Amino acid sequence: MKKTRKYFLLTIIMAILISVPVMAQDMSDVIKGINTVWVLMASFLVFFMQAGFGMVEAGFIRAKSSVNILMKNMLDFSMASLGYYIFGFAIMFGAGNLFFGKTGFFLFSIPAEMNGVPTLAFWFFQAVFAAAAATIVAGALAERLNFKAYLIYSFIISAFIYPLIGHWIWSNGWLANLGFLDFAGSTVVHAVGGSAAFIGALLLGPRIGKYNKDGTANAILGHNLPLAALGTLILWFGWFGFNPGSTLSAMDAGAIAKIAVNTNLAAATGAIVAMFITWRKFGKPDFGMTMNGSLAGLVAITAGCAFVQPMSAILIGLAAGFIVVYGVIFIDKIHVDDPVGAVAVHGMCGIFGTLAVGIFHETQGLLLGGGLNLLKVQAIGVFSVVAFVIASMFIVFKCIDKVIGLRVSREDELRGVDISEHGAEAYADFPISALS
Amino acid sequence: MKKTRKYFLLTIIMAILISVPVMAQDMSDVIKGINTVWVLMASFLVFFMQAGFGMVEAGFIRAKSSVNILMKNMLDFSMASLGYYIFGFAIMFGAGNLFFGKTGFFLFSIPAEMNGVPTLAFWFFQAVFAAAAATIVAGALAERLNFKAYLIYSFIISAFIYPLIGHWIWSNGWLANLGFLDFAGSTVVHAVGGSAAFIGALLLGPRIGKYNKDGTANAILGHNLPLAALGTLILWFGWFGFNPGSTLSAMDAGAIAKIAVNTNLAAATGAIVAMFITWRKFGKPDFGMTMNGSLAGLVAITAGCAFVQPMSAILIGLAAGFIVVYGVIFIDKIHVDDPVGAVAVHGMCGIFGTLAVGIFHETQGLLLGGGLNLLKVQAIGVFSVVAFVIASMFIVFKCIDKVIGLRVSREDELRGVDISEHGAEAYADFPISALS
Amino acid sequence: MKKTRKYFLLTIIMAILISVPVMAQDMSDVIKGINTVWVLMASFLVFFMQAGFGMVEAGFIRAKSSVNILMKNMLDFSMASLGYYIFGFAIMFGAGNLFFGKTGFFLFSIPAEMNGVPTLAFWFFQAVFAAAAATIVAGALAERLNFKAYLIYSFIISAFIYPLIGHWIWSNGWLANLGFLDFAGSTVVHAVGGSAAFIGALLLGPRIGKYNKDGTANAILGHNLPLAALGTLILWFGWFGFNPGSTLSAMDAGAIAKIAVNTNLAAATGAIVAMFITWRKFGKPDFGMTMNGSLAGLVAITAGCAFVQPMSAILIGLAAGFIVVYGVIFIDKIHVDDPVGAVAVHGMCGIFGTLAVGIFHETQGLLLGGGLNLLKVQAIGVFSVVAFVIASMFIVFKCIDKVIGLRVSREDELRGVDISEHGAEAYADFPISALS
Repeated sequence: MKKTRKYFLLTIIMAILISVPVMAQDMSDVIKGINTVWVLMASFLVFFMQAGFGMVEAGFIRAKSSVNILMKNMLDFSMASLGYYIFGFAIMFGAGNLFFGKTGFFLFSIPAEMNGVPTLAFWFFQAVFAAAAATIVAGALAERLNFKAYLIYSFIISAFIYPLIGHWIWSNGWLANLGFLDFAGSTVVHAVGGSAAFIGALLLGPRIGKYNKDGTANAILGHNLPLAALGTLILWFGWFGFNPGSTLSAMDAGAIAKIAVNTNLAAATGAIVAMFITWRKFGKPDFGMTMNGSLAGLVAITAGCAFVQPMSAILIGLAAGFIVVYGVIFIDKIHVDDPVGAVAVHGMCGIFGTLAVGIFHETQGLLLGGGLNLLKVQAIGVFSVVAFVIASMFIVFKCIDKVIGLRVSREDELRGVDISEHGAEAYADFPISALS
Repeated sequence: MKKTRKYFLLTIIMAILISVPVMAQDMSDVIKGINTVWVLMASFLVFFMQAGFGMVEAGFIRAKSSVNILMKNMLDFSMASLGYYIFGFAIMFGAGNLFFGKTGFFLFSIPAEMNGVPTLAFWFFQAVFAAAAATIVAGALAERLNFKAYLIYSFIISAFIYPLIGHWIWSNGWLANLGFLDFAGSTVVHAVGGSAAFIGALLLGPRIGKYNKDGTANAILGHNLPLAALGTLILWFGWFGFNPGSTLSAMDAGAIAKIAVNTNLAAATGAIVAMFITWRKFGKPDFGMTMNGSLAGLVAITAGCAFVQPMSAILIGLAAGFIVVYGVIFIDKIHVDDPVGAVAVHGMCGIFGTLAVGIFHETQGLLLGGGLNLLKVQAIGVFSVVAFVIASMFIVFKCIDKVIGLRVSREDELRGVDISEHGAEAYADFPISALS
Repeated sequence: MKKTRKYFLLTIIMAILISVPVMAQDMSDVIKGINTVWVLMASFLVFFMQAGFGMVEAGFIRAKSSVNILMKNMLDFSMASLGYYIFGFAIMFGAGNLFFGKTGFFLFSIPAEMNGVPTLAFWFFQAVFAAAAATIVAGALAERLNFKAYLIYSFIISAFIYPLIGHWIWSNGWLANLGFLDFAGSTVVHAVGGSAAFIGALLLGPRIGKYNKDGTANAILGHNLPLAALGTLILWFGWFGFNPGSTLSAMDAGAIAKIAVNTNLAAATGAIVAMFITWRKFGKPDFGMTMNGSLAGLVAITAGCAFVQPMSAILIGLAAGFIVVYGVIFIDKIHVDDPVGAVAVHGMCGIFGTLAVGIFHETQGLLLGGGLNLLKVQAIGVFSVVAFVIASMFIVFKCIDKVIGLRVSREDELRGVDISEHGAEAYADFPISALS
């Protein structure tokens, strides 16, 4: 009888030990399938942000430069796709040291899977991020940067600079080890792109006619605001891949839901706040600032979307709305000509969003009783990155300038870079009242 | 021996009782993951409909008012995001009575999950629906409604009016209890938006120059039809989130496939039918009516997409194609100036689509042997909602008119609301031949 | 004791036999759910390609014909939806012989599921493909084909011609039996559309003013290049549904990841290569060719995306970049007026992409040691299809020409088909400098 009872228990255990793994194998395939679908769909949305960036940038500049910016948009994505394939991924996620990875060039000898999805799916998600960092810069340098210089720049940033920062923060780099938190890239993507935009616009100088001798500035109006509005909404749409997709897994349903909601609330609040500030300040609710307000909210929530409560997301969006308005004014005041506001939106709000994690983090945030520790780490991290990008991009832009020149000629700029660089007219059937 | 046999059975049962729940736990996490991905992806698509609405509305009005409509588009979504967060969700899905919910303001003390997904995912799906209802109105009131009035209106409809109707129909409200069926919102979203658009346009009066003293009407042409075409296709695209996503679950694969197909067939048929009617009636296939025909089909199939066969979806689209053409003509005849046809598309086809459930429902429909019962309930429901929205929005618009005024001044309207309300030009590089 | 041991084993087996199927039932529902979500989301992306085609085509032609092309875009999708519902699916996937299917007209008596998803989901994915084949032709025949002719053509191609080819290759047809490989439709969709575009443009003749008496050609400039850039990016975005979605299953995660990456690398390389060729050849990097270069890469990788390595995808994109530039030049040289380059992009790169499978296939490709066998089959397949489409569409276009006429009158073409066919102006508020 005792024997039988022993058999009884043994049998149950054996049956479970056999049947559970059988199912678990299938189950893990199913989970990998869902996660891959999730990561790929998110990647597609992030890819589509290229169209958003392109339309925002084209819409906010003059007709005579819009083909050029869209060529840059198409090419920076294409260059980033190859650059991140050949070098970028290896530097960012290869085995290496605290500063850069050294394995996986040309995706040779990469593991079959990373983070629970096929490595190629993970690669693709990362590649579209690299392209986003590159394309942020295009708007700030619009209407005057020479096309060849842009091609070289965009290959360098997506193949080397961006992956380096990515390694520090999202792989086994020194900032990751410090406990630096940047969930979806307020620093990695936006502060990097925004800093590069700042140093580029500074070195390049303002567009002809932007600033007067007495130091006052002229508004150079965007030529197609409906296109800019469309671009803003495409970016917002794509951000739902950018932030929630950064979980890389569909299995933590609560997390992806929270991230989506935080992303949306910050964007909405950013738009409303920027609108009200301009209304109060200039007498009328301003279109460009309102669009940029939503983008400011999106950039700012990107680092913390997974770590903060919805109410904090609203507060982060609120602050971002302020920062972007006063940031654009400030950048203009120091005579850095940034036609689309990229420095304020991506640079300043990227920095702020990174710091905001130290303030609003659910458990480690300053305002939620977590003390100053995380905030310090966040500050060290984001300012190190900004300093590194400004320094390295300074060198890159200076070298490009020496070798092939950064800026088109005065005549070409006046005629418009569409004609001079591409022999193209954006709107051949329409008479254009070219400015300046 | 008997004992052994007893043990034998017991063991099998025990093994199953233990191993099945172990797996079922994992399984339920997996199912929640898929459903959340599905609901969120659908939400993103519905969000993107904002861009569709914006481009359709901007494209079908004059250049001089297009920045204003896009500001309204951006802001109604943003206001709805906050309004639905603070008040709307609580009124719609909170515990309460037959008429409104009373718990969950600011999403405080909401349950962790609703309908098998994290509550925040469910909230987000509902929030983008609330914004859709709000934005429908913008087109009908375009080119003359003052911006401040629009902000107030859009907060009120998404925070209070829409959630109230939603509670009646999609929560434990009196219409749900009656057996009223509105799968994805022909009534909840479209008839609500369309009715508000009707009463708003009626109170606001026509644009200057729209109707002549002898009662005849002047066509005021849309300024950018390619943009309107793009917007229509974006709306159609987004509707694949709107309707199939309303299952809130990916597990009933047959249902979501049927809903997607029905949605598409109704839209296609609506476009074809509207085109042929205008061809016959006016001698040429009309662009605006054809675009609106597809939207009419989409609105009309929204209530019944889960309840009818594909052949019925085609018939519903066919009827919607008729309704939208004659509806637009009728609305124009009674001198309600609706620049984009929102009343006919969303209001009339929303009502028709709701009634169509009573006619074409697979088991309860009049034509499929289900008798008149469901049709009666559908009629009671949709006409109660329309009456309530018209009455309540009449009060809302009247109050706004008293306090801040609904309409911009005559001079501002003539110059264009872009300049007067925002100091902006949509197309600064192009000479615009401003009408009237 | 022996008995007990026997019971012991029996019990384990029974427990497994019972509990595994219990779970497997659930599991298969879950897998069906994921696959259906995947197939539907991919279908939605392919649907959105309509907007991409529409914007590319409208942007690359003159303002005075842009409403017309967008009406055609809207209508070919709508006609294809119905045509593929009534006839197409039955001919393509119904039971039948090596040449056509014969069951399932009006989707009557179709099985509940096909390829592991609900048949309606499978139908929808196939229907949006049929529409893509139809819409490719619109661009090549733009600005001069009469609207009624286009409606008839688009119904015929999506209801009959395309499904026939589809049956040969993707159902139990003679090419499938030969071992012909076309994963996502370089032949089925693109070579079919491109061949029909070629014969159509040839029969229709060039636009007035395109070619001079001395044989030289005039450039007729596109009227809205930002719209064309947007369209290109939308197409690229939609291609992520087109190619990866063609797995029809989310469960082979490795395959869908590889397909997405290959798709992207080929497109990026195509854009870069086409840009550099035009830079070298014409002195400036050309906008239209660069956009078409990305589309060329996408078309060319479509057949082989599941069968080749990323490095091969880059080589395929590289070749496609060459082919599209020289293809456009060649088509122009033989005086076939193809305003958007559809013949070179879809026809030539579709043919090349199909042959490329025979060259780069991981195991059966010529360059990877697979010998000439597959390449021969690929050549037989694609040239048979091209010959069949050219012959049958020749008859179709000739019949249409006899009965209602293919081309609008000279006066109508000069005034623009928007006015003559639809009484519409695309940009009513703008003065248009109509060409020729």
